[in-house]
Amino acid sequence: MIRALLFDVFGTCVDWRSSVAREVAAAAGSAAIDGVDGEAFADAWRARYQPQMETVRNGSRPWTDLDVLHREALDGVLAEQGLEALGDAERDALNRAWHRLDPWPDTREGLLRLRRRYVVAPVSNGHVALVVALARHGGLVWDTVLGAEPAQAYKPAPEAYLRSVATLRLTPEETMMVAAHASDLVAAAACGLRTAFVHRPTEHGPGQTTDLVAPAGVDVEAHDLIDLAGLLGA
Amino acid sequence: MIRALLFDVFGTCVDWRSSVAREVAAAAGSAAIDGVDGEAFADAWRARYQPQMETVRNGSRPWTDLDVLHREALDGVLAEQGLEALGDAERDALNRAWHRLDPWPDTREGLLRLRRRYVVAPVSNGHVALVVALARHGGLVWDTVLGAEPAQAYKPAPEAYLRSVATLRLTPEETMMVAAHASDLVAAAACGLRTAFVHRPTEHGPGQTTDLVAPAGVDVEAHDLIDLAGLLGA
Repeated sequence: MIRALLFDVFGTCVDWRSSVAREVAAAAGSAAIDGVDGEAFADAWRARYQPQMETVRNGSRPWTDLDVLHREALDGVLAEQGLEALGDAERDALNRAWHRLDPWPDTREGLLRLRRRYVVAPVSNGHVALVVALARHGGLVWDTVLGAEPAQAYKPAPEAYLRSVATLRLTPEETMMVAAHASDLVAAAACGLRTAFVHRPTEHGPGQTTDLVAPAGVDVEAHDLIDLAGLLGA
Repeated sequence: MIRALLFDVFGTCVDWRSSVAREVAAAAGSAAIDGVDGEAFADAWRARYQPQMETVRNGSRPWTDLDVLHREALDGVLAEQGLEALGDAERDALNRAWHRLDPWPDTREGLLRLRRRYVVAPVSNGHVALVVALARHGGLVWDTVLGAEPAQAYKPAPEAYLRSVATLRLTPEETMMVAAHASDLVAAAACGLRTAFVHRPTEHGPGQTTDLVAPAGVDVEAHDLIDLAGLLGA
């Protein structure tokens, strides 16, 4: 019997690409920097994410939160694209775009419905303060914020899932990971959690080629979080 | 400027004594054990709480959560009162009374109002799963659950406050501890937090003699959480 649902956040609950693209375009406009493609910039910024976290996962770097990693990646992308004109204060402000990502249209209602029946908690690679900010920005309600920071492990490391489950005093079998990404669900399933795949076919824009199909073996497959609520009887 | 409110839970947000007394009386009734005074039993159970936590705080015992401490205390009180007839399964069930404590009548509405303007998080000595259960039982909404377990320190140890503040990426001065107990507020103030005293003059029953008056130096003094919301402009 499922008691708790654990949620990936970036891409599954919030539309990071559109939100970041909008803020990049606005920041470039304010700084009178022309020729910036917000979507392409968001993709380039996000592309540095997994390699950065890998340096923490493999132990070559001590625990470092996403505010720091996002800022380093921002500096890298600005340098790469010849946009060093953006000042330090403007970079700090733009970096906070990751605290203001809009939820997908179904997220708020879906979570409210699911919380009636299940404990709902994010298991994100974002730190607690960032995920709290996203929830307040998007009107989301969680029972508590779990994930990489409390577990001191970035997904898909097993500790990220298992420490979250242990904090809830549940077994992996009583817990379901909800994500739009096969890599997250495969890792959660390897830890014994149930899995739900949520289709987010435009997370990476209209030309998305990844995660268009549920990975083999998922327990549930849903079009969005409202659909998931229906499928899970909430 | 205050950005987040941190809440004591037992006594400040929930009425542990009435709730536990009711469940003790019910458990005694079901087991056909006569002559049990629910309120007196609740008081005796709770009286073991600070000495137990002190063994963790002073390092003579490793980190131990409240489910374990409550159960050990329950066994002690049952032995003391000659009530060993209560079976193991019944003891486990009664121990969970601490997961089902009713909120004070103003808590739900007060927190909802306060959350509109401030980050709200419990900083309780209860572990995350227990505090999540209390919130779901009472219809409370938190931004996230902080406190003794994530900090690995029982209040009034400074780490319980300072690690909670750090998790929110705030300074102590941006944070206000809300509690019905002088000891909690004095310890929080010593860490640099602002403080709000909430009057709970019947937490310990009609004959309460402690915490009837706000400690010197608190920033705010409120009759209940709805009053606090008004005082803090929420």
